[in-house]
Amino acid sequence: MNKLIIEVRINEYASRKHNANVPFSPAEICEEALRCWRAGASIVHYHARDPHSGAPSALSEIYGETARRIRDQTDLLVMPTLGAWTLPSPEARMSHIIELARDPATRPDFAPIDMGTSNVDAYDARNRRFISDETVYLNTTRTLQFFARTIREAGVRPVAVLWNVSAIRTTAAFVEAGLFEEPVYSEIVLTEGGLFAGNPGTVRGLAAMADFFPASIRMPWTVMCAGGNLFPIVGAAIERGGHIAIGLGDYPYTELGTPRNAELVERVAGMARVMGREVATPSETRSMLGIG
Amino acid sequence: MNKLIIEVRINEYASRKHNANVPFSPAEICEEALRCWRAGASIVHYHARDPHSGAPSALSEIYGETARRIRDQTDLLVMPTLGAWTLPSPEARMSHIIELARDPATRPDFAPIDMGTSNVDAYDARNRRFISDETVYLNTTRTLQFFARTIREAGVRPVAVLWNVSAIRTTAAFVEAGLFEEPVYSEIVLTEGGLFAGNPGTVRGLAAMADFFPASIRMPWTVMCAGGNLFPIVGAAIERGGHIAIGLGDYPYTELGTPRNAELVERVAGMARVMGREVATPSETRSMLGIG
Repeated sequence: MNKLIIEVRINEYASRKHNANVPFSPAEICEEALRCWRAGASIVHYHARDPHSGAPSALSEIYGETARRIRDQTDLLVMPTLGAWTLPSPEARMSHIIELARDPATRPDFAPIDMGTSNVDAYDARNRRFISDETVYLNTTRTLQFFARTIREAGVRPVAVLWNVSAIRTTAAFVEAGLFEEPVYSEIVLTEGGLFAGNPGTVRGLAAMADFFPASIRMPWTVMCAGGNLFPIVGAAIERGGHIAIGLGDYPYTELGTPRNAELVERVAGMARVMGREVATPSETRSMLGIG
Repeated sequence: MNKLIIEVRINEYASRKHNANVPFSPAEICEEALRCWRAGASIVHYHARDPHSGAPSALSEIYGETARRIRDQTDLLVMPTLGAWTLPSPEARMSHIIELARDPATRPDFAPIDMGTSNVDAYDARNRRFISDETVYLNTTRTLQFFARTIREAGVRPVAVLWNVSAIRTTAAFVEAGLFEEPVYSEIVLTEGGLFAGNPGTVRGLAAMADFFPASIRMPWTVMCAGGNLFPIVGAAIERGGHIAIGLGDYPYTELGTPRNAELVERVAGMARVMGREVATPSETRSMLGIG
């Protein structure tokens, strides 16, 4: 079977409330990325944060310093996030990617594109009410086409982020229409913790996505769970030939105490070995995902 | 097994280009509804259209005259559509429902609520391009809550229209939160013909929705296919205990010549009988769906 690609989702905009090991500053992100790389990760996904408060940052300098530090010490593939949808325009959401891409030392290997529009209000099950009620993650087809063209011109590869089957179908059409080149690294987003935008974080929730990749298009898929523990489905994903995207950015994993990102990666790598699947090195990941 | 509820989706905004049997005027809609009722339908879903051109209409008078005519001749359950999302506000989308509900003779039994937000641009597979690129079907959580409260106050029952698993999860939360009362008639929308907003119109596409109804909440489900032929999955839906929503509004069914709506209903009823499942009368449907 193909080797297992492990992506670490190192910080997102997660707080340190439940687990203080969420890295904020470029130095912290780099230190954690280094540990994850040693544990078997080949891709690092990160968000720029204010080094002290952890508040979301849109500063290209922070994105760039992080990429530089990681590349100085590892051969990890680097995937900064796209700008938040709260930014005023598709151009603004893309600007740091373009900026980083100008210098080969900071050019991202990947940038993620969320392939559709959804309501992303969180539901508070205990109090039986929605915490917010007007949060729409808006990515029109026009915006998606703009993202696809812009990052290609910048020499960056897309990650198709897939919240539902509709997004898989849209991504396949983007390949057909020449907007994406194969292979397209495809990230299934399952959602828990009162988030309903994805399928549930269950083996059945995974299957109801993974079954819909078209046989004729190369879309190697990985799976993450926003707001929930991914481990219950890690075995199923490994068995199906999928890949794993995990980290404290998505969930604090307090069931395991207060683990570091690298402990999550190590645990996934261990499960893969038990199941007879080798873990891909960054260089093998590059080759599997058609990078560089 | 429970009896089969057949809903006829009689016209939507379908053109007569491929099949001239799409009814426009209240008299035409009523005539076709009568035929469908005789063939086994118990629910009729219709859109108001200009009687001559067939252009979409938002006129309460047309909605009302249609309901009155249908009720004069049948005991069908009546489900007019909600106003199009192109109307200026949630209030405007709901206004004809409120208007119709004032008079018991025209009060809808149901009004459909699309439980989420999606891109609904159509893709032209032959020419490998999107036909539109900024069409977002916007239904924020706040709007959905407004719809739920407003139609309840009007004495109308909701139909939860479900384009993806996310919509099923949202609907279940609406029941928990007391926004919807059980049972909730739940309509799975599969999409074909270059529409990607739903799952594909296949047995697998159906299963990847039907598997996600929570066991603890009564959500009797039906299935429709926008832009495609529903018959390939009618057998699977009947076998699973689901219901069927079919009509020329969704697809012209030129594979069968130029059928009338009633011929589609008759064919579904015949399949049910072959499979040992009886067809529900309107009165049985009322009781199954908790109406009146």
